[in-house]
Amino acid sequence: MANKIRVTIWNEYVHEVYEDAVREIYPLGIHGCIKEFLEKLDVNGELEIRLAALADPDQGLPDEVLNNTDVLMWWGHCAHHEVDDGLVQRIKARVYDGGMGFIPMHSAHMSKPFREILGTSGKLLWGEDQHEFIWNVRPGHPITAGIPEHIELDKEEMYGEPFMIPQPDELLFISWFEQGYVFRSGCTYHRGRGKIFYFQPGHEYCRSFYNEYVQRVLYNAVKWAAPNDFGCPMHNCDMRGSLV
Amino acid sequence: MANKIRVTIWNEYVHEVYEDAVREIYPLGIHGCIKEFLEKLDVNGELEIRLAALADPDQGLPDEVLNNTDVLMWWGHCAHHEVDDGLVQRIKARVYDGGMGFIPMHSAHMSKPFREILGTSGKLLWGEDQHEFIWNVRPGHPITAGIPEHIELDKEEMYGEPFMIPQPDELLFISWFEQGYVFRSGCTYHRGRGKIFYFQPGHEYCRSFYNEYVQRVLYNAVKWAAPNDFGCPMHNCDMRGSLV
Amino acid sequence: MANKIRVTIWNEYVHEVYEDAVREIYPLGIHGCIKEFLEKLDVNGELEIRLAALADPDQGLPDEVLNNTDVLMWWGHCAHHEVDDGLVQRIKARVYDGGMGFIPMHSAHMSKPFREILGTSGKLLWGEDQHEFIWNVRPGHPITAGIPEHIELDKEEMYGEPFMIPQPDELLFISWFEQGYVFRSGCTYHRGRGKIFYFQPGHEYCRSFYNEYVQRVLYNAVKWAAPNDFGCPMHNCDMRGSLV
Amino acid sequence: MANKIRVTIWNEYVHEVYEDAVREIYPLGIHGCIKEFLEKLDVNGELEIRLAALADPDQGLPDEVLNNTDVLMWWGHCAHHEVDDGLVQRIKARVYDGGMGFIPMHSAHMSKPFREILGTSGKLLWGEDQHEFIWNVRPGHPITAGIPEHIELDKEEMYGEPFMIPQPDELLFISWFEQGYVFRSGCTYHRGRGKIFYFQPGHEYCRSFYNEYVQRVLYNAVKWAAPNDFGCPMHNCDMRGSLV
Repeated sequence: MANKIRVTIWNEYVHEVYEDAVREIYPLGIHGCIKEFLEKLDVNGELEIRLAALADPDQGLPDEVLNNTDVLMWWGHCAHHEVDDGLVQRIKARVYDGGMGFIPMHSAHMSKPFREILGTSGKLLWGEDQHEFIWNVRPGHPITAGIPEHIELDKEEMYGEPFMIPQPDELLFISWFEQGYVFRSGCTYHRGRGKIFYFQPGHEYCRSFYNEYVQRVLYNAVKWAAPNDFGCPMHNCDMRGSLV
Repeated sequence: MANKIRVTIWNEYVHEVYEDAVREIYPLGIHGCIKEFLEKLDVNGELEIRLAALADPDQGLPDEVLNNTDVLMWWGHCAHHEVDDGLVQRIKARVYDGGMGFIPMHSAHMSKPFREILGTSGKLLWGEDQHEFIWNVRPGHPITAGIPEHIELDKEEMYGEPFMIPQPDELLFISWFEQGYVFRSGCTYHRGRGKIFYFQPGHEYCRSFYNEYVQRVLYNAVKWAAPNDFGCPMHNCDMRGSLV
Repeated sequence: MANKIRVTIWNEYVHEVYEDAVREIYPLGIHGCIKEFLEKLDVNGELEIRLAALADPDQGLPDEVLNNTDVLMWWGHCAHHEVDDGLVQRIKARVYDGGMGFIPMHSAHMSKPFREILGTSGKLLWGEDQHEFIWNVRPGHPITAGIPEHIELDKEEMYGEPFMIPQPDELLFISWFEQGYVFRSGCTYHRGRGKIFYFQPGHEYCRSFYNEYVQRVLYNAVKWAAPNDFGCPMHNCDMRGSLV
Repeated sequence: MANKIRVTIWNEYVHEVYEDAVREIYPLGIHGCIKEFLEKLDVNGELEIRLAALADPDQGLPDEVLNNTDVLMWWGHCAHHEVDDGLVQRIKARVYDGGMGFIPMHSAHMSKPFREILGTSGKLLWGEDQHEFIWNVRPGHPITAGIPEHIELDKEEMYGEPFMIPQPDELLFISWFEQGYVFRSGCTYHRGRGKIFYFQPGHEYCRSFYNEYVQRVLYNAVKWAAPNDFGCPMHNCDMRGSLV
């Protein structure tokens, strides 16, 4: 890891371009909004943030970007299928072997990298936008630092259980939705050397990324997901001789 | 383990004795009600069920009972503090070393055996009786066999997060409560050689133990928690010599 | 699930065909050997066992076989790359949505289905055949029923940590190898509705499948991995309306 | 948490006083040795370290010390039974409700606070001092930062599986012992708001606390175990009204 945590915020950036209602909420794009609040919270200048989008050359993640990313944030929805399979494998390898952190948000539960990296179909129930309480079930975790008992969101898209994910390494948040549903809305995993945090808020028609606690959770998650200093190079199914 | 699964249902059996409203709902006591439905579901005669109560000699669990119990179910509330500390240690040892299954229900989250065996303060939020949906977040687990996506309870006492338990080995159910709360309502643990399943429904003023799915969950849990055939006697911090 | 547990033992079946030394140890093929001991242990006739191999039509797993398999056992090594990618996706879907059990053995840690289903690179260290002790770290689990403190194998191929797997849902066995290595040799996972058990012994030049405890572990695992009765059909990211 | 991480290193400090052989290895006491290397590694002055011993007033942990400790390290062996039960309950409450980190080392697996806080009998196998390799099974975790594939110790007391602990939240290290044994030697847990890390090296007749990687692991663990900023006060089974 370089001295700064090098964050790349990837957004498919389609809704904001084609839909007035979304662009009004996120005029800089969802990725632009996230960059803005991360920089605001980064009072000690520990982060170095880059944006990437589907329409960029190499879908925004050429080797020189991906290999110099410590934490990759991911927002996608209507264009999941357009993401290149080769890119997905490169992201996966960078998490597994390189220890890159990966933070899929909201509808990224059905994105190719999330499903490939985690081992999940990504299936869940969903419904219309409604009132949500995100309960903090793990006070004391670095990602919940500074987060109260619950976060209240006026409107978010309903995501409901059963969510067909592997049991999280750590379950940090559980959400209540007005119409009778619950959801494991904040989950950590590790895969290979990398750390993963899935967080549910962030529907393109809602204003969740402006909520100060949603912002704090994502800021905490970036710092938590940054790779550690490895004491050994990555092996590749090496043959080894006797140690004794 | 004997051929049959020897189940002991322990109930403090205080509310039913002193409160008309509770006795009307559970005329046989909560333990009596549980015995009745377990026997109904036990169509192959695999269970051998005994009742025990706080007012019984040795608080219902003399050595000859406890040492011949494969699965201990536990309901307690207003008399937690009256349970003998020595008994708690004997139950703990029977779980840890003997592999006895332990199924604490509802307000047993604050019982001495639950807190001692698990390592938890048992703290949670709570509120008045209200509508509850118990979501099945682990279809495919033996305890959720035959259980639909969710169980609906007209009224249950609200228990809410943060519930200060160790992260469950397996989280099976998450509950939604009408007034904005969520709860990890079905959790498995192992401790030593024993299996533990906590299940939240069962307030003394509610009729949850008459719900067919609540019944099925508890029946499944008894079968799941029964001890397995151990291939080795229990060691006790033995000193061992070289194997090679 | 049908009344019987329908087990399909898949083997790439290459070493036994082309190498005399392997065929001498496993004249029926590794799959044939496993079938034999499972049938020996199945004294109540609960299993219905089928064999499948890479060279069979549809690589041994046409839809009518796969869709009628409750538990799929998998042995592969030198021909991992020949397994059809479409088949891998069908197996994955059958585990995730159909709840099929999956039991990858030994060198299946690098097989396509293991890596796809679990989310792992499968990387590990390895070395020459040597003495192994498989320690039982979870007495009390159904898969370790009847298994002593440790299983001793005269010679097995060394597999060593770091094994780049997701942390197991349940870690059941840890192995000691003569030349200074350790390995998480028995691991359970769930993915979607399905249960997975990885078990390390089974090198083609060793006789581990003749060890009575290795046999008992695999027999226990088949019974553990069989799917449960689901109380609800599989959803597919359904939209849902208000419950309240 | 105060600006600095306030560490208290508790040692029963008996062997070093009464046995020449131990005092020769640890002339400052085991706690003194740990303080020395933590201070050496703490190049940015983030730690504030205090020593405490069984023979001190209030067994070294009066309220004004305990309530101002962020991370408590614990070494005990021959005097476990002398630790006051009231103190154990105060430590437990400080972990559960106050989020104090707790780092039990070596023979603290049988100490009262370890068993009470975790929910374990602490039982294991043990044997004479022998060669040990501590394998790093979780490269990428903050506690394994800078730690190579394995740590080699010339001689350590053998601790062996089955170790009757709850399955760790995260298993970081597995040890190989010369005479055929393995051990889960580095385990994280959370209990209530607090973080716990058990680490196995540290026999009083061995020199493990002088090993640079053992030192680094413990330094990393102190930083990992320090409590986070809680966004809400600790509740105590509070009753709550409707949020909607």
